[in-house]
Amino acid sequence: MPLQAHFDDRGRFTEIYRDEWRLGPRPVQWSMVRSAANVLRGVHVHALHVDYLTMAHGELVLGLRDLRPSSPSHGLSVLLTLSAEDPHLVVIPVGVAHGFYFPKPACHIYSVTTAFDGSDEFGCRWDDPGLELSWPCSAPLLSERDRAAGPLSKLLAIPSLRERA
Amino acid sequence: MPLQAHFDDRGRFTEIYRDEWRLGPRPVQWSMVRSAANVLRGVHVHALHVDYLTMAHGELVLGLRDLRPSSPSHGLSVLLTLSAEDPHLVVIPVGVAHGFYFPKPACHIYSVTTAFDGSDEFGCRWDDPGLELSWPCSAPLLSERDRAAGPLSKLLAIPSLRERA
Repeated sequence: MPLQAHFDDRGRFTEIYRDEWRLGPRPVQWSMVRSAANVLRGVHVHALHVDYLTMAHGELVLGLRDLRPSSPSHGLSVLLTLSAEDPHLVVIPVGVAHGFYFPKPACHIYSVTTAFDGSDEFGCRWDDPGLELSWPCSAPLLSERDRAAGPLSKLLAIPSLRERA
Repeated sequence: MPLQAHFDDRGRFTEIYRDEWRLGPRPVQWSMVRSAANVLRGVHVHALHVDYLTMAHGELVLGLRDLRPSSPSHGLSVLLTLSAEDPHLVVIPVGVAHGFYFPKPACHIYSVTTAFDGSDEFGCRWDDPGLELSWPCSAPLLSERDRAAGPLSKLLAIPSLRERA
């Protein structure tokens, strides 16, 4: 959803989240993430928690693919560019696979609706052809975990993701 | 409180808030604020809501004065410098007057524990001598409201601030 940025001589003020917007479950923890140029984080998906995300600095190429069998947008993929200069809050539902590519140094803020639980962290290779995501990069910088991630087919077979969807 | 920044090749990851840290009432809305160089925001104080604040970019010279009559630190003033490079989460209790000075362009994130309510926004002149804050500036850029704020003595007479303290 678009966020309203208010400008004056002093700078810019932007509300990034309100409980009363009722976007979904309320967040229980918030994090700030800085990324170097050419970093890709993901592709990840969760069975329990929703992510809320906004850019504080720079740009994000956000890749999404809906893995929820019962969703009207099941199987759809989308690649969006988000900029801190045109602030948005992104809500990433349970069961929607997501990857974050940062073409330039960037900073984003995100929150999650359950306390961190390693057993709710699933992922697959960022460049699995089945994701149908045309990333604007060929050799991004990945974490060890993301580099070692398996194929999408394996992700789709995980019971907790199938059941929730 | 100091925050733990985790570094790797990709950048920096910092948890900035968790409900389970039990720092006080839980936040209900979050905002992102960019400030130009030489901006001063404040001095403000609230009777109802706690503020949580962290720097995303740049530096903050944070001025605090405890106005709570029953507080052990009643009447104490402090000027602190906070940097995004050494991340901290600041908790500003009800009844503690606060001003934010940004020597250089900066970005901070903050949350509040009640939905915005104009009747919980109190303030006084940033340079009131009674605040005992030696700001590192003489002619900061202020909002109209902050420029027109009254003396500290008037603030101290406000019943809702006296009662809560």
